[in-house]
Parts: sequence; structure tokens; C-alpha cells
Amino acid sequence: MKRLGIIGGMGPEATSDLFLKIIRHTPAKKDQEHIPIIIDNYPQIPDRTAFLKGLGESPLPYLLESIRRLEKCNVDYLCMPCNTAHYFLDELRKTTKIPFISIVESTLESLVKSKKSYNKIGLMATDGTFIGKIYHRVFEKEGVNIVNFNTSIQQAIMDSIYTLKCGKKDEAVKLFIEVFSKIIDEGYDCLIAGCTEIPILLPYIEKSSIDIYDATELLALKAVELCYRG
Amino acid sequence: MKRLGIIGGMGPEATSDLFLKIIRHTPAKKDQEHIPIIIDNYPQIPDRTAFLKGLGESPLPYLLESIRRLEKCNVDYLCMPCNTAHYFLDELRKTTKIPFISIVESTLESLVKSKKSYNKIGLMATDGTFIGKIYHRVFEKEGVNIVNFNTSIQQAIMDSIYTLKCGKKDEAVKLFIEVFSKIIDEGYDCLIAGCTEIPILLPYIEKSSIDIYDATELLALKAVELCYRG
Repeated sequence: MKRLGIIGGMGPEATSDLFLKIIRHTPAKKDQEHIPIIIDNYPQIPDRTAFLKGLGESPLPYLLESIRRLEKCNVDYLCMPCNTAHYFLDELRKTTKIPFISIVESTLESLVKSKKSYNKIGLMATDGTFIGKIYHRVFEKEGVNIVNFNTSIQQAIMDSIYTLKCGKKDEAVKLFIEVFSKIIDEGYDCLIAGCTEIPILLPYIEKSSIDIYDATELLALKAVELCYRG
Repeated sequence: MKRLGIIGGMGPEATSDLFLKIIRHTPAKKDQEHIPIIIDNYPQIPDRTAFLKGLGESPLPYLLESIRRLEKCNVDYLCMPCNTAHYFLDELRKTTKIPFISIVESTLESLVKSKKSYNKIGLMATDGTFIGKIYHRVFEKEGVNIVNFNTSIQQAIMDSIYTLKCGKKDEAVKLFIEVFSKIIDEGYDCLIAGCTEIPILLPYIEKSSIDIYDATELLALKAVELCYRG
């Protein structure tokens, strides 16, 4: 059993979502068989998208501070339930000896393993994730092509995410249901929930035939694979 | 804003429940306004009730280890979402300068503040919590009297808790619904959810006129009061 370190708080509810998904994917029959985890819920980390748009303070020093705290707790693996923060992944990996499980790589691995071929893959993510090419750079190496949404859909995705972040869940759900039906109309047959706020909204949409890859869930599965069986 | 340290993993789902309740009671309008928290999810802490029954290893050294880890992370407050573990509270408080928020004291404070007078107060808790007189000792000082359940109800409460701990949630819910109706028949007009697994089962019972004090929720409110406003 290995101890997992989670750089959290981006946002706190997304961190809690990852935590619950790890617990539920762990085949434990009693408390003691669960994975030891240190969660550094550090919501003061500055907004990732704002920084990538040139509008705010860099999250990097805060992310490094969190890694230093988790190192003191002797964690065996690191991860980060915030897709946009993965813009800094290469830099973070350089500063620590602890292996860092990437949410983007975990998602790509699952998509490749599925051996399904899709016509139109969409990425539900923040503007920051697009500006930083966080998924595009990793996915293109494996020949997986993401087809960007039009501006009005992307804006509506951002509105859903930030409405949720400011605690207005009912309103965020309403916005998300609306934009989701527009996405379906655009002919996407595969969607990546590539912002950790999105899976909190997913249970509210009607089941459709479209395949959805929940990056948070895929990160949870990878963490369980490495920490429980490791 | 103060940083909260959570000694967690007893069990992990109860820890996640406290975490979510803290998030939802925090009046934040964006990520950065949430409370910084370190969660030491350490499920390897030995079973509290087993120890209090003389059947297992002491959790105390593990609890101390967790406090040392949280001290390294410079937390300002400590708490522990496990009622039974509060058997060790006095000893834990002696070993650290960090103020320790008690789940039992938070519950008592809310009960006293309500200024309601009850005929029959019941405590839904583990055998360990009864053996250790964890609630009884604190409550009696304020003249609040707990009326113990009969043996068959107490056994059914224990079965619900441990069925949930071993991951069989549906079965635990069924057991809990059954025992809850028996408790109502016994004329209780106030119940304390004094085991952190119980609030996970509470959403599944039908609404009744009985007052229920969710100790996890009351701990969350106290933590928000001290850390957000502190």
C-alpha cells in the first residue's frame, strides 16, 4: 500500500469528488484496507485560467508550496484534481522525486485502451486548458484529435464551471444541461470531462449514447491501481 | 483564515462526509475563499471499538503519528471525524499545542443552544462509544441525560455501521431503516448521530418529527466558525 498526496482545493468540491471516487474504486472490506492519502486542500492557489489569460497571479509558487508540504508527509505518489493546473506539470515534475500521476495521461491511456474510434472528440474544459494546450499537446502525440467547440458553446461551458465554483449549483446544472444538448446537436460522439468541476454536473444530464470520459474518475482508477496494488 | 487539520480515515467515507459538509457550510463565492485544510486520511488506524472491547491494537500511537504529520503542515486547528476515537481526546490534547475541536463538545453546544427540552435522548453510536462513555461523560456535566437503547437495537446499529464500513451500502441502508423505525417506536424524541458513518445512512430514512443532531455536521459548522471567521 502506498500513500497518495493530493494537491487539492482547485476547487474543494472537485477535490472531494476525486477523494470519493478513490474510496469507491478501492476494493476494501474494512477501513484498514483503504489507501492512506494526504489531501492538501489549498484553495488559495490562484485561478489557473485567469493566469493563462494573462489576468492574474501565477499559481506555480503555490503549487510548489503544496508539493513541499506533501513531501514532508512522505507521500509515494502525487496527483492534482485540476486539469488546468496540469499546464505546470513538467515544471512540477522537475522539482520533486515523487512520481506525479497526470490526469491528462490517465485519460489518454483509458481512451487508447478502449480501442474505440470516434468521429468527433470534444473536450469540456476551461479556457485555460485550451490556451495552455494541456490536452491537445499530450493527445496529439498519440494521434488523438480533439475538435474544439464553437465560441458560444465554450463560453457556456466556462459559465457552468464558474457558476458552480461560486456555489450556485442549481444554476450551474441548468446552464450545463442547456449547453450539453447543444454539444449533442453538433455531432460529437465522445466527450472528455476535462475540468474537475464537470463530473459534479454530469449526474444531472439525461443518459445519452455519447461516450463520456470522466478525467477525475480515470485519475482515481490510476491512483488506486498504483497505491492499492502497488 | 485558519488551516484545519483533519485526522481522517476512520472511515474514509465519513472523512469525505465531513469535508463536503465543511465546503457546503463555507460562504465562499470562489475557490480562494474556501478554508485551507490538510486531511490525513489514515485508514490504517486500528479499529476503535475493537480496542475498547479489549480485542485489538490501540489506535493511540497511530493517532499521535497523524497529529505529528499535521503539525508539520502547520495546521491551526485539529479535529477528528470519528466519535469513538474521542475516547483518546484528553491524551491527544496533552501532546499538542494545536487547539483540538471536539465532535462531542460541538454536538453538546448545539443541543444546549437549541434550548429545547427532550423527554428521551438516544445516541446512535458504536459499542466503543458507549463502553468509553465518550458522550455520557461530557453530556452529564451539562445535565444532559442519554437513555441507552436496548441490546437488540444497539446490536442492529452496530450491524448497520460495520456493514457500511465493509462497503455494502445498500445492505447497511436496509438494516438502518429497520432499526430506525424500532427506535421511533421506543418513544425517543431526540437522536444524536454519534458515529460518523450514521449521517451517510440518514438521507435514506423517511422524514420524521424527531430531532436529529448530526455530530459530523455540527463539527463542520464549528470548524467553519473557527477557521473561516477566525
